[in-house]
Amino acid sequence: MIEKDVANAIRFLSVDAVQRANSGHPGAPMGMADIATVLWGKYLTVDPADPTWPDRDRFVLSNGHASMLLYALLHLSGFPVSLDDIKNFRQLKAPTAGHPEIEQHLGIETTTGPLGQGFATAVGMALAEEHLRNRFGPEFVDHHTYAFVSDGDLMEGVASEAASLAGHLQLGRLVYFYDDNKISLVGPTEWSFSEDVPARFDSYGWHTVTIDGHDQGAIDEAIAAALDDHRPSLISCKTHIGYGSPNKQDTAGAHGSPLGDDEIALARQTLGWEHPEFFVPEAVYGWFDAAMERGRAAHAAWQRRLDADPDRAEEWRRFQHPEAPAASAPDHAAGSSVATRKISGQVINDIAARRPDLVGGAADLASSTNTIIDASSDFSATNRAGRNIRFGVREHAMGAIVNGITVHGGLRAFGATFLQFSDYMRAAVRLAALMKAPSIWVWTHDSVFLGEDGPTHQPVEHLAALRAIPGLWVVRPCDAGETAGAWNLALERTDGPTAIVLTRQGLEMPDTPTAPDMVRSGARVVREGTDVTLVATGSEVPLARDAAV
Amino acid sequence: MIEKDVANAIRFLSVDAVQRANSGHPGAPMGMADIATVLWGKYLTVDPADPTWPDRDRFVLSNGHASMLLYALLHLSGFPVSLDDIKNFRQLKAPTAGHPEIEQHLGIETTTGPLGQGFATAVGMALAEEHLRNRFGPEFVDHHTYAFVSDGDLMEGVASEAASLAGHLQLGRLVYFYDDNKISLVGPTEWSFSEDVPARFDSYGWHTVTIDGHDQGAIDEAIAAALDDHRPSLISCKTHIGYGSPNKQDTAGAHGSPLGDDEIALARQTLGWEHPEFFVPEAVYGWFDAAMERGRAAHAAWQRRLDADPDRAEEWRRFQHPEAPAASAPDHAAGSSVATRKISGQVINDIAARRPDLVGGAADLASSTNTIIDASSDFSATNRAGRNIRFGVREHAMGAIVNGITVHGGLRAFGATFLQFSDYMRAAVRLAALMKAPSIWVWTHDSVFLGEDGPTHQPVEHLAALRAIPGLWVVRPCDAGETAGAWNLALERTDGPTAIVLTRQGLEMPDTPTAPDMVRSGARVVREGTDVTLVATGSEVPLARDAAV
Repeated sequence: MIEKDVANAIRFLSVDAVQRANSGHPGAPMGMADIATVLWGKYLTVDPADPTWPDRDRFVLSNGHASMLLYALLHLSGFPVSLDDIKNFRQLKAPTAGHPEIEQHLGIETTTGPLGQGFATAVGMALAEEHLRNRFGPEFVDHHTYAFVSDGDLMEGVASEAASLAGHLQLGRLVYFYDDNKISLVGPTEWSFSEDVPARFDSYGWHTVTIDGHDQGAIDEAIAAALDDHRPSLISCKTHIGYGSPNKQDTAGAHGSPLGDDEIALARQTLGWEHPEFFVPEAVYGWFDAAMERGRAAHAAWQRRLDADPDRAEEWRRFQHPEAPAASAPDHAAGSSVATRKISGQVINDIAARRPDLVGGAADLASSTNTIIDASSDFSATNRAGRNIRFGVREHAMGAIVNGITVHGGLRAFGATFLQFSDYMRAAVRLAALMKAPSIWVWTHDSVFLGEDGPTHQPVEHLAALRAIPGLWVVRPCDAGETAGAWNLALERTDGPTAIVLTRQGLEMPDTPTAPDMVRSGARVVREGTDVTLVATGSEVPLARDAAV
Repeated sequence: MIEKDVANAIRFLSVDAVQRANSGHPGAPMGMADIATVLWGKYLTVDPADPTWPDRDRFVLSNGHASMLLYALLHLSGFPVSLDDIKNFRQLKAPTAGHPEIEQHLGIETTTGPLGQGFATAVGMALAEEHLRNRFGPEFVDHHTYAFVSDGDLMEGVASEAASLAGHLQLGRLVYFYDDNKISLVGPTEWSFSEDVPARFDSYGWHTVTIDGHDQGAIDEAIAAALDDHRPSLISCKTHIGYGSPNKQDTAGAHGSPLGDDEIALARQTLGWEHPEFFVPEAVYGWFDAAMERGRAAHAAWQRRLDADPDRAEEWRRFQHPEAPAASAPDHAAGSSVATRKISGQVINDIAARRPDLVGGAADLASSTNTIIDASSDFSATNRAGRNIRFGVREHAMGAIVNGITVHGGLRAFGATFLQFSDYMRAAVRLAALMKAPSIWVWTHDSVFLGEDGPTHQPVEHLAALRAIPGLWVVRPCDAGETAGAWNLALERTDGPTAIVLTRQGLEMPDTPTAPDMVRSGARVVREGTDVTLVATGSEVPLARDAAV
C-alpha cells in the first residue's frame, strides 16, 4: 500500500535529518507519520505553488520539537523546502530550524516550540476564519485549522485556557490530533500526567474520539467525523513514539536524541524500508503531487470566483490592504484631567469605524480597559459578526489567540488587560516579537496610581521588563495626542508587536494639543538642562513637569 | 438559627467595610458567607491564639478580591484582626489590604489576588502536608487545606495545571469550594465560560459534588463526604453573588463596587439584619469562640504528644530549624570544562544529604536541569516519602506549588526549568518576591549557548527582566565555587526567593578554586581599568577573561 510507503518516507527523512544534525527529535515524527499521511493526503487543502493563498487550510505543529515532521511534509508536498534544506536541518540560516519559525512563504504558518503556544495560536486562526467567513461568505473564506498537539502541549495552562474558549465559541473548524504516546522528554507521562484527556475536552464542549494512530482507515474516518461536527474536535491518537525502532519505540530514548546509525538500520529492516539515507521513491513524490491537486484546484476555483465578482474582489482587496487614515487626537479641554485608557477607548472607536479589520477584546476587563468597539457586538458561537472578543480571565490564551488572528491574516487584533497581568501572557508576547507579528497589546492601570488594589495589582518592574523584549515596541502616551499617535503607530507597524500602556488615573491635558506623531520620539524631554535633563513617559510626564517647576 | 445570623454577620461586616472604603468587592463575601459559616464553624481546625501553629488547617481565599470575607472571618474567630482594622479596610498600612497579603501571624496564609495563584499555591500546601505527615506521622502532621475559588480562578491556566497535578498525585486532603455564581467582573460568565466544571475536575481524578451554596446542611454533608474521599475534592456551590441585595444580587454590579447606602439598607431588610453598621451580636462572637475550641483543643493535644516524645520533638525542632552546613565546591580540575548545571546537581545532592527538608523538581526537565536528588525517590500518589517532584510540563503551576510548599513551612523547595521558560511562571515568581517567600528557582540553559534549539529556546532579555523584579535575587555563578555559594545563599535566605541561573555548556574551571562566598559580590570584576572595567556573571566570566587578554 503506497500510503504505508508515504508514512515511512516521512519517518526516514525525519530520522535521517536528525541523525545528520546529531540533534533533534525523531520519535514524534515516527509516531505521527500515519496521521500526517492521511491528513495531508486526503484533507489538507493547500497550494504548494502559492503557500500564502489566503483561503488555504492552516496546519500547526504545536509540538514544535517534532519540526522534521513538518519539513518532511513540506518537502514531499512540493513546498519550497528542498532536500538540501532537509539535510541542513538545525544548521544556521537553513529554513529547517530546530523548532519551526514562521515562514509562511514556505508553508510554516507560525513559530512553535514553547509548548502550548501552537495549540492556542491555532484557536486564534480558527476564530479569524469564522469571522472572515461571516463577512465575505464561504465563496471566499472556507477553510479549516488543523493542529498536531502533544502531551506537553496539553499539560500547559495556556492550552487549557484556549481549549475552554474554543469550546465556548464552538470553533467547529478546529481539528486537533493528540499524539497520545505516553512519553514526554524525561520519561513516561504516567510520572506526572494521568488525567482523562478526552473527558476533559468533552467538558469544554469539544467533540472527541479515540483511535489507533497507526490505523490509517480509522484516522480517515475520525477526520471525516470531525469535519462533520459543529464542535471543535480532538482526535486522540494512540501512537508509538519512535514507531518502528525496535529498541527505542515507546521510550523517552526516542524523544529528543538521534536514534544512532545502528538503530536506524534496524528500524529500516523492521519497517521494510531498505533504502539509503534521504531516499524518497518517485512514487511517494507522485502520490503527494496528486494529493496537492486538491489544493491547486480549490485555489483556482477560488480565484475564478474572485475574478467573477469585481465588487467583492475590490472589497476583499481593500480589506486585506486597508488604507489607514491616521487617528487624530480626541478633543479634551486644556487642563482637564483624563485617563489615557479613556482616550484610547475613544481612539479605538474612531479607528474601528474606518478600519473594519480591527477586532479585539480583553481578559474579563473590557470595561476597565476601555476596549469595547461600541458599534459592534460580541463575537460568539451564534454571532460570528462580532468584533469584540470576550477572552474571559485567560490572559495567556488571549496573547496566543491574538497572535493567531494576526498571523492568519486579514484582520488586525488587540488584547487587553491590566499591565500587571502582562506577566501572565509574557511567553505569547515574546513569541509575537520573535515572529515579527504585529499583535497589539493594550495594558492599562500602568502604575501605583491604580488605586487601592495593592501590590499584587501594582506594576513596578513591568515597563522595564517589557522594554527588554527585543522587537516589542512599548509605547506609553501622556495625553490625547500621543494616545492617538500610539494607535497609529501600532496599526502602521507590520513587522512586530506594539504595546500601548495606559493610565487608570486622569492626566492633565496640555495647554496646546499635542501632535500624535510626538509619541514617536519614545519619551518626552520635559526639561533639558546642563546638569539634569528630565525625561518621562505617560503619567510621569505631568509629574516631571511639576517637578521641573 | 444562629448559623444564619453568623452568615449575615460575615456579609454585613464585608458590605459595611467596602462601603466605608468606597472600594472593594462585596458580592463574593455575601455569596460565600453560608459556605464560610459551615467550614469555619464545624471543620476548620485553627487556633486564633497561635495562628502559626504548624499543624493547623490551611485556608486560602484564592478569589482574593473577596478579601473582606477573610478579614471578617479572622475578626469574628478571634484572630488578631480588630474591628478597627475592618473599618480601615483598604487603607494604607492596615492589615486589611485590598487583596490578602500574607501575614501568617494574623491568619492570612498566602497572598492572593492575581487569579489562579491561590488555587495552585494551596496545592503546594497540601503536597507539603502529605510529605511531612509521611515523615513525622499523623500525631504531628495531620491537617487539611481548604480553598475558596472563583470562576476567574478556574479560567486561569495555572489553576488547570495545578488541578491536573493534584489529581495525579491524589492530594486527598485538598477541599476546594467553587463559588459558581455565574458572574465575573465584567458581566455574566456565560459570555466566555460555559464548560462543565465538575466534569473537568472528574477528568483530573478529583471527587466532585454540586450543591446549593446557601444550604448549610448540604454544605456540611458535602464537606464530610470530601474529607472521607481519598481524592482532592471540588465542591461546586451554586451561589448568588451579592446574596440578599434586592437590586444587585446575581449581577456584575455586586462584584467590584460598594452597594451604596440605600441598597445596603434594603439588603438589611431583605435578610432581616436590622443592625447598625459594623455591628456584631454577642451571640455571633460566642458562636465563633465555641467553634474555635475545636482548634484550641487540637493544638493542646498536639503539644502534649510532642512533649511526651522528646526524641520526636527534637527531630521535629531540628527539621523546622535546620542547621545548614554550607556546601563546599565540588572538585573539578583546573582547566576542565564543566557546566554549572552539572555542578549544581552535585551541590543539590551534597546539600540534600544534610538538609532533609529540601524537596523539589522540574517541569519535565529533571535530567536536563540536573535537579534530581539521587538518594531519594519520586513523590507520588503511592509514595509520599519521595523528595523529587515531577511537575510535568507545567511551569506556572510549579512556580505556585513551590510557593505553597514554602509558605506552608517545614520544607524548602525548588522548581527547575530552562531560563527561557521563566516567562511561563513569572507571575508566581513575582508573588514569591512580594510574599518574601524563600522559594528557590533553578533555571538552566541560560544563554544562546543552549544549542541548536533556536530562538524560541534562547534566553536573551530574561536576565534583565528577572533582575527587574524587586526582591528576587538572581544569582548566576561562573564556576564550582560560586555554584556552591549560590545554593548556600538561596538556603540561608529566609526573606525572599532566589533564582540560580546556570549554563548548559561547559565552562573552564579556574586555576585556583573559588571560595563559594565570592558569589555574594553579585558579579565578577574580571579586569579593572582606567578606561574600561570588565564585569561579568556566569558563562560571560570566562568570555570576559578571554576578551581581557
